[in-house]
Amino acid sequence: MGTVFIDLGSRSYSIHIGHGFLEATGQIIKETYPLITKAMLVTNSTINKLYGQKVFRSLWEAGITAVLAEIPDGEEYKALSTAEGVYDLAYTSELDRKTPIIALGGGVVGDLAGFVAATYLRGVPLVQIPTTLLAQVDSSVGGKVAVNHPRGKNIIGAFYQPAVVMADLSTLKTLDQREIRAGMSEVIKYGVISEEKFFGWLEENLERAMEQDSAAMEHIVTVSCRIKAEVVQEDETEQGRRAILNFGHTVGHAVEALTGYGVYRHGEAVAIGMTAAARISEKIGLLDSFERQRLERLLVRAGLPINVPPSLDRKDLIASMRRDKKVISSRLTFILPESIGRVRMVRDLDEGLILSCL
Amino acid sequence: MGTVFIDLGSRSYSIHIGHGFLEATGQIIKETYPLITKAMLVTNSTINKLYGQKVFRSLWEAGITAVLAEIPDGEEYKALSTAEGVYDLAYTSELDRKTPIIALGGGVVGDLAGFVAATYLRGVPLVQIPTTLLAQVDSSVGGKVAVNHPRGKNIIGAFYQPAVVMADLSTLKTLDQREIRAGMSEVIKYGVISEEKFFGWLEENLERAMEQDSAAMEHIVTVSCRIKAEVVQEDETEQGRRAILNFGHTVGHAVEALTGYGVYRHGEAVAIGMTAAARISEKIGLLDSFERQRLERLLVRAGLPINVPPSLDRKDLIASMRRDKKVISSRLTFILPESIGRVRMVRDLDEGLILSCL
Repeated sequence: MGTVFIDLGSRSYSIHIGHGFLEATGQIIKETYPLITKAMLVTNSTINKLYGQKVFRSLWEAGITAVLAEIPDGEEYKALSTAEGVYDLAYTSELDRKTPIIALGGGVVGDLAGFVAATYLRGVPLVQIPTTLLAQVDSSVGGKVAVNHPRGKNIIGAFYQPAVVMADLSTLKTLDQREIRAGMSEVIKYGVISEEKFFGWLEENLERAMEQDSAAMEHIVTVSCRIKAEVVQEDETEQGRRAILNFGHTVGHAVEALTGYGVYRHGEAVAIGMTAAARISEKIGLLDSFERQRLERLLVRAGLPINVPPSLDRKDLIASMRRDKKVISSRLTFILPESIGRVRMVRDLDEGLILSCL
Repeated sequence: MGTVFIDLGSRSYSIHIGHGFLEATGQIIKETYPLITKAMLVTNSTINKLYGQKVFRSLWEAGITAVLAEIPDGEEYKALSTAEGVYDLAYTSELDRKTPIIALGGGVVGDLAGFVAATYLRGVPLVQIPTTLLAQVDSSVGGKVAVNHPRGKNIIGAFYQPAVVMADLSTLKTLDQREIRAGMSEVIKYGVISEEKFFGWLEENLERAMEQDSAAMEHIVTVSCRIKAEVVQEDETEQGRRAILNFGHTVGHAVEALTGYGVYRHGEAVAIGMTAAARISEKIGLLDSFERQRLERLLVRAGLPINVPPSLDRKDLIASMRRDKKVISSRLTFILPESIGRVRMVRDLDEGLILSCL
């Protein structure tokens, strides 16, 4: 089992990465909170069937009685109305300020349970147990929690760091290949934004990783978490540098929004967005054609889409990008690669130029 | 105009205290955020009639276009459902991460607008313009924001510091005497928890202050904010010392909860709670009888109640205290005065003893 440490002063925490330690959940939580005897487990119906019993037994063996908040499976339940049900259960179960909320599941569970943990009694401890590749390399790490608003994703949220993250790689075995691919998109992103060496490793080992070779998977999750940790440590609340994590997300979010969130997985939309950003970067002379092709080739090998679907109106895409919550005063901002391993923020790009690259 | 500075590193801010500077709202906001051209003003229908125009004009003159979110007047609207309406207006008005939310009103407006500011797009700047004595000396300062849950007050919230607080004392002129008295309860609290000298000043000047003598009022708000600032600087998220601000609140919250929040003002319930705590403290030999009497006399002079109403079942009160969100693992915790100017936290008091003092 490896560990990545996120150094954020009083909000520091460890990400444990390894195989088959769901059974040790209770023990690991006890290491962080020796005195607790109670916890709330938030999960969805699908994940509960797979791992609920295992986690409950482990908590029980460690002397922790857990209350179960099972939410339905699906992005549409990442809403304030679902959170209200969890608050209610927390209150009626007499959870106090020291009682941890444990999020067991993918991004929806982690974001929603995280938001409840951030706001119930003005904040209780949060334990993240991500069970998808995307959640293990991205959403469970770094402290972004949120629910959706009927008008947009993640509109209501907070920066709230977990107390501990446990990424058990054996939970990835039950994912279908499409979810692995979607997660791999964010993994490839880390190579592009900050580490050419890791990108090169992916070029050599991608297929091995996609088949879930244990060592390869552990390497991927560990390096991804390390890179994310480095960025978050420098800029916890996205005042500046943290924005590089949004590489591929300007176009990606717009593609998701316009197709109604059902068509593309988040990682797939980000793959399209990364390609668009690389093309824009090449067009303005920032990125070599060869480097752009390296990125596209790796994404295609990972089974990810790289082109905006022809059915989407390009003008609508631009309008949607302007509505993204990261847009400040309607100025479109792109994270553009300068090479594999380095990106920069570029503002006020010409709309015609962007259109020509979509 | 005086200023109290709250030093919280990157979350530091100033509390401006003076008379008649609502007209300078736009200018003061521009000093903190020179580049902004947009803001959202959250207020209630009553306050809007009194001061809305004045604040809007000032913002407009400073080049800031404001969107108005008017909420109904009353504690029952401090709810997630009201917040949802504000999120919606924020989104449709295209507020971005740099757009300040301005809370103009008493505790309900400040707490709700503060919660929206803490969570909309994971946090936007918050400007507090408190218009009641209670809000000026307590709720607008220190970063506690929240909405109520049907089952309890302030159950859903965050620690989120404002960017600036403007306490315009001339807004207090429109308050009725009962609201002044309720605010004065928290003012007296500051004397007891940390400054005998201030308590002595209140003993000499209370009536002058209650009649809203300008200099006396400015002194009261300034010293109260300074004391609160000192406590919050030491312990922003209530891990320890900040709990002294809860002096009088253990019993006070229970009295409010059992009488249904309509009967007693918060400050009135806190006065009852402070007296109860002083009596417990005397009973266990921590506090001199003379000091307890000094406190009771000052509260009575301020027109505040000091006894738990006979109609309330004492056992219900104890049960309600155990449900307070500050209670950790069902252990009843009291902040007890040792003298005027010093309090300490005491745990696990005998229930019979508490009962005998209610």
